[in-house]
Amino acid sequence: MQRKIYIENIPREQALQKFLQALEQENYFKIESEEVDVLSSHGRITSQAVYAHRSSPHYVASAMDGIAVKASSTFAANEVNPINLKKDQDYIEVDTGDYVPRQFDAVIMIEEVNFLDGYAQIIKPAVPWQHIRSVGEDLVTHDMMVPVFTRIGPYEIASIHTAGVEKIPVVKKPRVAIIPTGTELEERASDDMEAGKIVESNSRMLSAFCAEWGAIPLRHNIVVDDPDLLRQAVMKTKDNADILVICSGSSAGREDYTSTIIEEFGQVLIHGIATRPGKPAILGIIDGKPVIGVPGYPVSAQLIFNLFARPVIFKKQGLVLPDADKVQAHVSRKIASSMGVDEYIYVNLARIKDKYMAYPLNRGAGISSILVKADGVICVERGNEGLQAGESCPVSLLRPRKQVEHSLIAIGSHDMTIDILGNLLQRQYGIRLVSSNVGSMGGIMALRRQETHFSGIHLLDAENGEYNRSYLEKYLPQKNWILLNLVKRQQGLIIKKGNPLQILGLQDLLRSDVRYINRQKGAGTRILFDYLLARERIDNEAINGYNREEYTHLAVAAAVKNDACDTGMGIYASARVLDLDFIPLSEERFDLCILPDLIGERELDLLLNSIKSPEFRQQVSDFGGYNLEDSGQIIHYNN
Amino acid sequence: MQRKIYIENIPREQALQKFLQALEQENYFKIESEEVDVLSSHGRITSQAVYAHRSSPHYVASAMDGIAVKASSTFAANEVNPINLKKDQDYIEVDTGDYVPRQFDAVIMIEEVNFLDGYAQIIKPAVPWQHIRSVGEDLVTHDMMVPVFTRIGPYEIASIHTAGVEKIPVVKKPRVAIIPTGTELEERASDDMEAGKIVESNSRMLSAFCAEWGAIPLRHNIVVDDPDLLRQAVMKTKDNADILVICSGSSAGREDYTSTIIEEFGQVLIHGIATRPGKPAILGIIDGKPVIGVPGYPVSAQLIFNLFARPVIFKKQGLVLPDADKVQAHVSRKIASSMGVDEYIYVNLARIKDKYMAYPLNRGAGISSILVKADGVICVERGNEGLQAGESCPVSLLRPRKQVEHSLIAIGSHDMTIDILGNLLQRQYGIRLVSSNVGSMGGIMALRRQETHFSGIHLLDAENGEYNRSYLEKYLPQKNWILLNLVKRQQGLIIKKGNPLQILGLQDLLRSDVRYINRQKGAGTRILFDYLLARERIDNEAINGYNREEYTHLAVAAAVKNDACDTGMGIYASARVLDLDFIPLSEERFDLCILPDLIGERELDLLLNSIKSPEFRQQVSDFGGYNLEDSGQIIHYNN
Repeated sequence: MQRKIYIENIPREQALQKFLQALEQENYFKIESEEVDVLSSHGRITSQAVYAHRSSPHYVASAMDGIAVKASSTFAANEVNPINLKKDQDYIEVDTGDYVPRQFDAVIMIEEVNFLDGYAQIIKPAVPWQHIRSVGEDLVTHDMMVPVFTRIGPYEIASIHTAGVEKIPVVKKPRVAIIPTGTELEERASDDMEAGKIVESNSRMLSAFCAEWGAIPLRHNIVVDDPDLLRQAVMKTKDNADILVICSGSSAGREDYTSTIIEEFGQVLIHGIATRPGKPAILGIIDGKPVIGVPGYPVSAQLIFNLFARPVIFKKQGLVLPDADKVQAHVSRKIASSMGVDEYIYVNLARIKDKYMAYPLNRGAGISSILVKADGVICVERGNEGLQAGESCPVSLLRPRKQVEHSLIAIGSHDMTIDILGNLLQRQYGIRLVSSNVGSMGGIMALRRQETHFSGIHLLDAENGEYNRSYLEKYLPQKNWILLNLVKRQQGLIIKKGNPLQILGLQDLLRSDVRYINRQKGAGTRILFDYLLARERIDNEAINGYNREEYTHLAVAAAVKNDACDTGMGIYASARVLDLDFIPLSEERFDLCILPDLIGERELDLLLNSIKSPEFRQQVSDFGGYNLEDSGQIIHYNN
Repeated sequence: MQRKIYIENIPREQALQKFLQALEQENYFKIESEEVDVLSSHGRITSQAVYAHRSSPHYVASAMDGIAVKASSTFAANEVNPINLKKDQDYIEVDTGDYVPRQFDAVIMIEEVNFLDGYAQIIKPAVPWQHIRSVGEDLVTHDMMVPVFTRIGPYEIASIHTAGVEKIPVVKKPRVAIIPTGTELEERASDDMEAGKIVESNSRMLSAFCAEWGAIPLRHNIVVDDPDLLRQAVMKTKDNADILVICSGSSAGREDYTSTIIEEFGQVLIHGIATRPGKPAILGIIDGKPVIGVPGYPVSAQLIFNLFARPVIFKKQGLVLPDADKVQAHVSRKIASSMGVDEYIYVNLARIKDKYMAYPLNRGAGISSILVKADGVICVERGNEGLQAGESCPVSLLRPRKQVEHSLIAIGSHDMTIDILGNLLQRQYGIRLVSSNVGSMGGIMALRRQETHFSGIHLLDAENGEYNRSYLEKYLPQKNWILLNLVKRQQGLIIKKGNPLQILGLQDLLRSDVRYINRQKGAGTRILFDYLLARERIDNEAINGYNREEYTHLAVAAAVKNDACDTGMGIYASARVLDLDFIPLSEERFDLCILPDLIGERELDLLLNSIKSPEFRQQVSDFGGYNLEDSGQIIHYNN
């Protein structure tokens, strides 16, 4: 097969329109119907209106507990001259729902009856037909109960069941065949996976979306990169499915056969869409049914699936796409975007006082974890160069609004103990803690712009050996802030188990056989590293890997663990959880700087309580490498 | 057992607080956890934070299709002096995701490479680490991926699966035992059900709610009203369930054993709650677990279940109750409410120009169909006497907001052909038609107050024998309206099959053995009936049943069918669908009066198109008794 390098760049709406129109021409959206028992119809969509089979009540019924009477026999009753009605002749006792025989035409409530021996005494006349439910008061035979294209919920089940309808016509669930392709793919992760192997997870994600949208996912086993095998998989699945999805193989790489094979069986309508991520997508038709080739990166895969499979799956069921819930939010930093594409930016969201702030997440299309972290997504449409820091824009919510509103945000340096704190806040008080790792200096800037509720910081002042306070006094002189210790922790060199390169200290980083990995600029750990290098008069440019950056302690440890480098500086806890060795260099203070003006009084109390709680202290101690002697103590209150 | 007549009247919030506090004292809300495979965890709630088991990628990976190189070997390249790199020595070809061996530290995109025989020519230097994904770029071992009490969706599944985590800890689904009780209950409807028998549907409705709230419903078979059998059912289910619900038997009627039996096994905390409907509810505790006795009427049952079971089921799963989506709406008519109770009023909703209107539905607690029809619910809280017509109040939505916004409302007289029209609008254009049956004069008043998009009317002008126009000219003289014929239809007397009483015409209604049933005041059919009586000089007070009212043609027909009366006036179609006989008396025009100012241009076109469509004409013809010669014709355009 030929290697095809260049693909198209079709605007999203145009691609969708062409796709839907082609499917309409094939009469693809004709509704397919099946009958199901109403008692197992929960969540299904009616394909025809449902009419009542019987009336309810089907008899004249008492609406109260009381006595059934002939109204005319009560007209003379009053408080002075009560009337005594004879049991089983002038009245009968009835409970709510009981049949009212034809000789009676009213019911008197039990509370208004004085029972004597064999008689019922009343002091008020009854109005004809009072407290009586007429035949069909609820439902009349042949009433239209539920119109077409309506979701069957609890109310519909109860009412249709009452109406004596056993089977109802519902829309058949669309069947979505999903074929993952790629020689590099593995069904499950294992601890000894080879380099170059990847866990196949896109089909799992798309299957779950199908279920959320009312469709049935039919996942095929992984197909290796062999055009014959992919051809066979398409042959085998296409007749049994309403939609065919081929996972990856959609770009123009050496082993991307998807478009060629779609052309063999049918037609490629679009190859290449003007979105980022998601560009190398394919939309086609085989046997009058839609085929979608989704890109391999998870962020791209779900975007393409949401943009093109979702409208098809909804329309196939006669459903209108619901609007996304949106908020207007200010972006915390500049977002550059290319003029030629619709760019999707995943963000965290928090409400700071009375406005929403959106914090852009990493834009790597390969990073599945940003989808888990994201609270919303911004679409910067074609023809825009992006957004300025602070600019306001609509954000489509990916979580319930209430969850977003009950969030605290911590922008700054990250430590594993912040995750512990977040879990406690969630578990005990239903407060979600969003933490965004931008390093200590990034935290200071967020505090200064009043864009975070609090920040984790560990900034060494080289002049006095003190932590954090002098930075805050410099950057937030007039503000109201609380500096509070969270933990003290060991910083040092993370090295391989058994120390095969015999690294003993910072001087060894000058050796040519030692590959270092650094933290990003502005990270407290990098500032500490530079301080320690300066103290030992080591030239940082002489260190192999000084310019190679990672963003977290755990990422540094993982790089050491996986032999992407030999050492890096980080905290003891991250070496310990990955079972690595550690050369301690310094104990540092990791503090929280809190802006009390931006946090509700209750939330502030709960935050401080959680830090001081025995649960927090216990879980941090279990991690190892932390010193809690000052934890929860206020170091300075600036106001 | 004693008959207990009076129950308490505890405010809703107080009842809930007492219930939750009692359960907290029993440590009932302690989270119960179980492990599930992440691939079958969709929709579950984490009971602990989930941490990554492995890093992803776990190797240094190419981020592009291209060639892996040593960056330093490319530094000299430019357009004038390209560099030729030797295959398998200076470079190797890599696809996205491929392992980048240790001797290389950069990837050059395929688009920037000119492949020669055995060489790759480049004209631009590579920056070290460009287009390379570092180990753990997505996930690092021991990263906290998903915090506690988080719903597992498509993104979480993909990311956790990638992270090599097979089993995750999730909250156990609460098990809700539901016991329906009542000798009058039947499992399924049948055509020969006795008077006094009722289809048991409440447990089906509550089971569906359980499923929507993440719980497992365990429905018991129907238990007849026998304290021993109910006792046995409670014994059998209580240990296996987290919540026990006893359906009906919760008021104070002769056969209501629920509270007595709860007292035997545990404790009744509350009996009687200050809501309408729903008052005779019971909240109790058995073996440290909640027990709820719900009233028998469906509207009451679901209200009590929503008010008291839902918060318990959410809290038991560590979840915060989501806020209801609300709109501010103007009520179309006065709503009286009792000062002592929170009163729940179910309403239809529509957007008329830029405001929402709420149209109260029938308040009968026994009417399951109002739950199916309702778009929202208003709570008139204790201490209020109700709402004035036109007053604005918050309405909690029971449907997605978008559906409510895409609605047309038809308030006025009802005809089965309006249901056919509604189905066509829904099926073809996604427009929901809400029709509210208040009779023709009610329709005229709604048009006058600009509270409906259009109205069905069939009002005979006794002076000239004409229909509708003179009424509109009188009540809407200055307004913009279109009068359009929908159908012409036969009106007459609906009588039993075979005409056992030998009713031949209106004169027979004066016979004492003939029980008539009338339509409500303001209904076009009643106005026609009165006109025909006057023409034959019949005194309406002499008719047995003249004051007994039904609200629809089908309800009249059902009353005849079920021997609740012998005859009533109505349209031929309703006699036909119930297989009754019919004495024709008059053909009448059933028109629509449309207010074009209140309807969008597109919606107006679609409405008119649908009326003229062959589908509409075909389906109406199939009903029988309709004349379509003028259907779709504009009779008058007043503007």
